[in-house]
Amino acid sequence: MKLNVKLLDIASRGVLLNSTDARTLRVRDGDRVLLIDEVTGRTAQAYVDTTDSIIEPGVVGVYKPVNATLAAGDGATVEVRSADRPRSLVHIKKKMDGGRFTKDETVEVIKDVVDDTLSAGEISAYVTASYIHGLDLDEIEYLTRAMVDTGERLRFTRHPIVDKHSIGGVPGNKISLLIVPIIAASGLLIPKTSSRAITGAGGTADLMEVLAPVDFPASEVQRMTEKAGGVIVWGGATNIAPADDKIIAHEYPLRIDARGQMIASVMAKKTAVDADLVIIDIPVGRNTKVEDVQDGRKLAREFIDIGERLGMRVECALSYGESPVGHTIGPNLEVREALTVLEGATEPNSLIQKSISLAGMALEMAGKAAPGQGAEVAADVLRSGKALDKMRQIIEIQGGDPNVKAEDLQPGEYKFDVRAPQDGYVIELNNRSLVTLARFAGSPYDHGAGLYIHAKKGKRVKKGDPIFTIYAEREWRLSRAIEVGRALMPVVVEGMVIERIPQDRWV
Amino acid sequence: MKLNVKLLDIASRGVLLNSTDARTLRVRDGDRVLLIDEVTGRTAQAYVDTTDSIIEPGVVGVYKPVNATLAAGDGATVEVRSADRPRSLVHIKKKMDGGRFTKDETVEVIKDVVDDTLSAGEISAYVTASYIHGLDLDEIEYLTRAMVDTGERLRFTRHPIVDKHSIGGVPGNKISLLIVPIIAASGLLIPKTSSRAITGAGGTADLMEVLAPVDFPASEVQRMTEKAGGVIVWGGATNIAPADDKIIAHEYPLRIDARGQMIASVMAKKTAVDADLVIIDIPVGRNTKVEDVQDGRKLAREFIDIGERLGMRVECALSYGESPVGHTIGPNLEVREALTVLEGATEPNSLIQKSISLAGMALEMAGKAAPGQGAEVAADVLRSGKALDKMRQIIEIQGGDPNVKAEDLQPGEYKFDVRAPQDGYVIELNNRSLVTLARFAGSPYDHGAGLYIHAKKGKRVKKGDPIFTIYAEREWRLSRAIEVGRALMPVVVEGMVIERIPQDRWV
Repeated sequence: MKLNVKLLDIASRGVLLNSTDARTLRVRDGDRVLLIDEVTGRTAQAYVDTTDSIIEPGVVGVYKPVNATLAAGDGATVEVRSADRPRSLVHIKKKMDGGRFTKDETVEVIKDVVDDTLSAGEISAYVTASYIHGLDLDEIEYLTRAMVDTGERLRFTRHPIVDKHSIGGVPGNKISLLIVPIIAASGLLIPKTSSRAITGAGGTADLMEVLAPVDFPASEVQRMTEKAGGVIVWGGATNIAPADDKIIAHEYPLRIDARGQMIASVMAKKTAVDADLVIIDIPVGRNTKVEDVQDGRKLAREFIDIGERLGMRVECALSYGESPVGHTIGPNLEVREALTVLEGATEPNSLIQKSISLAGMALEMAGKAAPGQGAEVAADVLRSGKALDKMRQIIEIQGGDPNVKAEDLQPGEYKFDVRAPQDGYVIELNNRSLVTLARFAGSPYDHGAGLYIHAKKGKRVKKGDPIFTIYAEREWRLSRAIEVGRALMPVVVEGMVIERIPQDRWV
Repeated sequence: MKLNVKLLDIASRGVLLNSTDARTLRVRDGDRVLLIDEVTGRTAQAYVDTTDSIIEPGVVGVYKPVNATLAAGDGATVEVRSADRPRSLVHIKKKMDGGRFTKDETVEVIKDVVDDTLSAGEISAYVTASYIHGLDLDEIEYLTRAMVDTGERLRFTRHPIVDKHSIGGVPGNKISLLIVPIIAASGLLIPKTSSRAITGAGGTADLMEVLAPVDFPASEVQRMTEKAGGVIVWGGATNIAPADDKIIAHEYPLRIDARGQMIASVMAKKTAVDADLVIIDIPVGRNTKVEDVQDGRKLAREFIDIGERLGMRVECALSYGESPVGHTIGPNLEVREALTVLEGATEPNSLIQKSISLAGMALEMAGKAAPGQGAEVAADVLRSGKALDKMRQIIEIQGGDPNVKAEDLQPGEYKFDVRAPQDGYVIELNNRSLVTLARFAGSPYDHGAGLYIHAKKGKRVKKGDPIFTIYAEREWRLSRAIEVGRALMPVVVEGMVIERIPQDRWV
């Protein structure tokens, strides 16, 4: 059926049809149609919305993301027809029935994910089936390669390229802000693409954004890395492994983080930035993604195997994940803490030790430190001020203010101290609850929102001592966080359980 | 955030926000928001679309299905906020991890499906997880009851109520057009709700629509049944077990027909129409839904068990499913064939035998025929003309022309004979391919489109004999069907394979 284009400024992958035309086309709301431009021959798929009045018969309202592909002008004539069923649905069905994806099938599915040829429901079926039946190493390799091939790639002339990834699950994990400048200051290249918070209180990209812009195309990431030795940017803006964001968007509502999918998405990004040496940080502990060391070792083995298949050297660090790294959660607080260390502070120990250990592993792999000496070499780079200089250079090349100081970064003006209800030891400090609290306080969107933890697990406290402080930029968010905190009770001081009176727990 | 309503005539469950407001609300395209009317207190959930120009900041464009719940006027003030994550996602995640749904969890999921609280992706995850892990009898019972409770119910004062269902998979299965009038003419009540074609060439509702309107609310279905003894209506218009349509819409793209889901959906509809005695037709054979008799028996046992749990007597018939029932596929052709039988024809045997056997089972269960005599009693009702009279009464009460005759119903004017390429026996006549052909010819939308099968499986044919005729209302559809037929080759005449020359297969 031939229809005249009317461009509509709506940001979803749809077209708006008059319901008469939809009936003639035998399509209903949510059905998939194919649009073919009569003149240019360009095509685009879209999902149908219908109306009785906004669009008249004979016209098709084309939403923005559809026209990004179709590139038709207002009034252009397009052929609109019911779209064929994508072949990748056959592969997804096979996986649902317990089959394994072949290489070609994986490519077909991932291409259809990236092109929006698969609907939300179909991608969700793919994600669910892959989660339930799992992916074996071959399937993970195919998936990794397919994700790389459907996005952009960096190609460096100077090598080795170092990269680092933390699989997440521990709050306050601002270590990239130290590792990247240490590595770059050591003469290596590290083009670090990071994520924004999905379930967390701030991804590395959210933190770096406090200091400088983080949205750059892939070519800029390469140019800046070649010049400054390192960058810390948001991966989502680069079009590197773009399938990943779409898949994660479907995992998120269900709170699944399918192992094979996760390994492929990490390794695809590392492959696409041309990495040779990769450090994977695997936080282990209750209330993190990996509950025990055995499980962590198995996951590490899988990362290393996939790395070998793709020509990368991978080393993994199982790290302590039961407490936040450092004392802070939330953008300004975390960045302040990291800058303090770059400026010479010798505290907090957990943050410094973790950062120099991981940076040291990379330095050893690259031959910049003798075996067993990496952490010490990294600590020297940090103590010498070279890491701070490098970080300033990175901030500058990304367009931020290189003269920023730790003290410039302040938490929100509204705050609330959570105090020990009695003498005792902090025997529990629940990671997930802390993150939830920080989010209710406004993190990561309100940069000043977050938590400062005074007493970590194992610390002896007296009645009335502050255990942590909640910061917020807006009063109502602070109130909301306090209210949620009363329900979550992320802190347990020994003995407290005996006197369980919920409304009085937080004084 | 308070926004002013602007009603938009778009038929999807969304709202259109200016992207500035979306940013302030921290929501992105596809996110779920909750709308609360300031004055009435009514609430509705919706999915976000964004625009830079169609809607200005401070305004929310509310699409039609959302306002069906919200009932706000243009200019009304609503509070719009990011919606909470539905709890049913926790239950779906549990199922993904191999758990079993409890009764309460099932109720929560189905309620959220019916209310559109779950997104397309989330319903798809539910369907996929239920398909992969399966549902046990307890879960099927919970699901059945939840589907009944989230829709309307009929409550008859006169009993027993008979109902019949075919699980599908065999083309040309127009038996309800004979069974319903036979049962009703025997003095029993049969409020038959049927489906429209999803993957088929015509559901019973599509067939009946040739004779009379089929869209009625539940209360009308009850009233008409009490008066005429029976009806044949479209279930989708009744709001009986409405969750089913939404779930099927997500199974369809993946071509899954999850067993537990299917049993629950059938039994929910039977429960909701107040049925006491239920006949389930299970066609068995290659290229149907149930491939062998063992499998059919197992499925029958499950239907019977769930029936017992819900207080219904269920009997199942495993029927021959490898060939179409009768000679016709497609609305006008099938209805003509059924009316011919009601008018006294003694052919086609497969159609008459199947109809009187199933009707006979119900007559025996209801005590209207002695054990073993049901089919004969049903045949008498048919031969006597009472079934024809009853059918006319049913057509009339539904608003059709009671004087319609078989000869009034004609297939489309464009036709093509598919002929035997050599002497031999028809050794294959593929159900799925026949249905695909009929659909390409325009069935069920074009009532005149369909197939007439001259030579069924096992029939001896001479070279050049017609095996089947394709009918269409539009020439281009006939051409398309012929073209598709050449690729599908739904007919194999013995010996033919040796001379395999695809382009010449159909002369």
